[in-house]
Amino acid sequence: MIGLVVDGAFTVAVDWGTSSLRVWLLDSAGAPLGESRSAEGADGLAGGAFEACLTRHIERLGSAARGVRVVMCGMVGARNGWREAPYMPIPARLDELPRHAMRVAGAGVEALILPGLVRNHADAPDVMRGEETQLLGFSAVPGFSGLVCLPGTHCKWVRVREGVVEDFSSAMTGEIFRLLAQHSVLRHVVDPQARIAADDPVFLRAAAAGLARPEALLHTLFSVRGAALVAGLSASAAAARLSGLLIGTDTGAALREVPPGTPVSLIASGPFAALYERVFGLAGVRPRVFDADEMVRAGLFRAARLWDEMELRA
Amino acid sequence: MIGLVVDGAFTVAVDWGTSSLRVWLLDSAGAPLGESRSAEGADGLAGGAFEACLTRHIERLGSAARGVRVVMCGMVGARNGWREAPYMPIPARLDELPRHAMRVAGAGVEALILPGLVRNHADAPDVMRGEETQLLGFSAVPGFSGLVCLPGTHCKWVRVREGVVEDFSSAMTGEIFRLLAQHSVLRHVVDPQARIAADDPVFLRAAAAGLARPEALLHTLFSVRGAALVAGLSASAAAARLSGLLIGTDTGAALREVPPGTPVSLIASGPFAALYERVFGLAGVRPRVFDADEMVRAGLFRAARLWDEMELRA
Repeated sequence: MIGLVVDGAFTVAVDWGTSSLRVWLLDSAGAPLGESRSAEGADGLAGGAFEACLTRHIERLGSAARGVRVVMCGMVGARNGWREAPYMPIPARLDELPRHAMRVAGAGVEALILPGLVRNHADAPDVMRGEETQLLGFSAVPGFSGLVCLPGTHCKWVRVREGVVEDFSSAMTGEIFRLLAQHSVLRHVVDPQARIAADDPVFLRAAAAGLARPEALLHTLFSVRGAALVAGLSASAAAARLSGLLIGTDTGAALREVPPGTPVSLIASGPFAALYERVFGLAGVRPRVFDADEMVRAGLFRAARLWDEMELRA
Repeated sequence: MIGLVVDGAFTVAVDWGTSSLRVWLLDSAGAPLGESRSAEGADGLAGGAFEACLTRHIERLGSAARGVRVVMCGMVGARNGWREAPYMPIPARLDELPRHAMRVAGAGVEALILPGLVRNHADAPDVMRGEETQLLGFSAVPGFSGLVCLPGTHCKWVRVREGVVEDFSSAMTGEIFRLLAQHSVLRHVVDPQARIAADDPVFLRAAAAGLARPEALLHTLFSVRGAALVAGLSASAAAARLSGLLIGTDTGAALREVPPGTPVSLIASGPFAALYERVFGLAGVRPRVFDADEMVRAGLFRAARLWDEMELRA
């Protein structure tokens, strides 16, 4: 422990993604007492920069955060991160994530990096890093079995059975929206910054088309250009149409993979939450909705508790 | 005619796309006597630059090309081209394209710009510019009725009935390959320059997966990354997998739109021809294959003949 006195009452929770870093100080019940965030994603850091960066954020959270145990998730545990926390293969019990975590220790910090999950199937190998921690927080909701949707750059669709991740798949929905809006022929007609409202009829019509015919995506995408050229669709309406097609297609394809009536939970933050919830509604599905930020904090806090139990047993 | 003596024996045929220009001198039977090409696409030119550029290419083709009638197709007729040749709405008789062409005349040139086609349907408006001229060349194949596939950056799928374009749809297949290989998270694992062989088992397996489940594209795309991270897929194999998924999905979706047994023709040049032909084979379809360069020359030549007839009637 290198002379550190770790105060078991508080937890520093760290969600360290590819392009962003969020650090919270949590109280003894897991409630956030303070937050420090920046764009210092794991992609831009190397070697000792991780520790210096984390120490700086912990200092910002004040003296109560000093010497507190730290639990981290996300790309900080990737091969090019602070220290690699190898993926756990599925099926995976979420409450075993801390047992597969890696420790890092430095001058002022003692921290755990949670592993991601890997799907080792030859047909469609897949990985996640970060969402498993949201799922660990979510698994405190007792007894859920069904499909969990975690929208984002790479939207994760996860089959969970009572705390066990049985299968998952990643869809490039968010990234393809950005690529098309910024780099494709559609960039001339789409406003990539447009705010899309979940009750926008253009969004809803496109989402319904995507849900009904997810196989037609490569064809329907080009219709965004056609609608702008031929029907004078505005740049913000074109963004709504593009988003609707993609989210509708994503959701339609995912729902085809599960039996009708499968319970669905949606873990999302920001605009995605309302957009996906509305598209599920078009498909006749009513998901339970959870906030992604709350879930990642809950997962990191739960991991800290499980860590305590492991230390006590050790 | 501004003092020009147009020699009816020869034709200058011009395929002027977004990013490339190809100019041929054709003999009185439509066979190419010479070719001049460059990267001076219509996207980078404005105003008088078109005429200067075309004149330069015609000079390169030698004295026989001087004062010869010119027929052009492609983005040269777009709103930002040399002169806009408004789209013909479908259903459209291909041999009526020259009647809807626009004339441009300059110091040393008298030319016709063929129009594109537009699908004015509210659900999926669509446009083409250039492919309609390949179809005009192709329609010399008598009596074809069925589905025509024209692969490319935006792959066109066209329903033709005896010289009439009844419907069409554009798929962003080629552009999405480029976007994903160069700008997405897959750029770390895909070699965008890889030469993909049509008999590569990685390509074929991915194409079969795309054909079988075109609705799953957003999900299967991410598996290219998974296969690289988890199974050590090489960068060139990852390119083959990505290409197979996209071409398989594109073809699978298009074939679902037509009755089984519909005759299929493939108009393609370069590597696309073999890749699409092989994917059709996996789907149990045997297309007739035509060379895209030959078809565009044949279409431009046929348009020149039809122009002659119009002049004679006038």
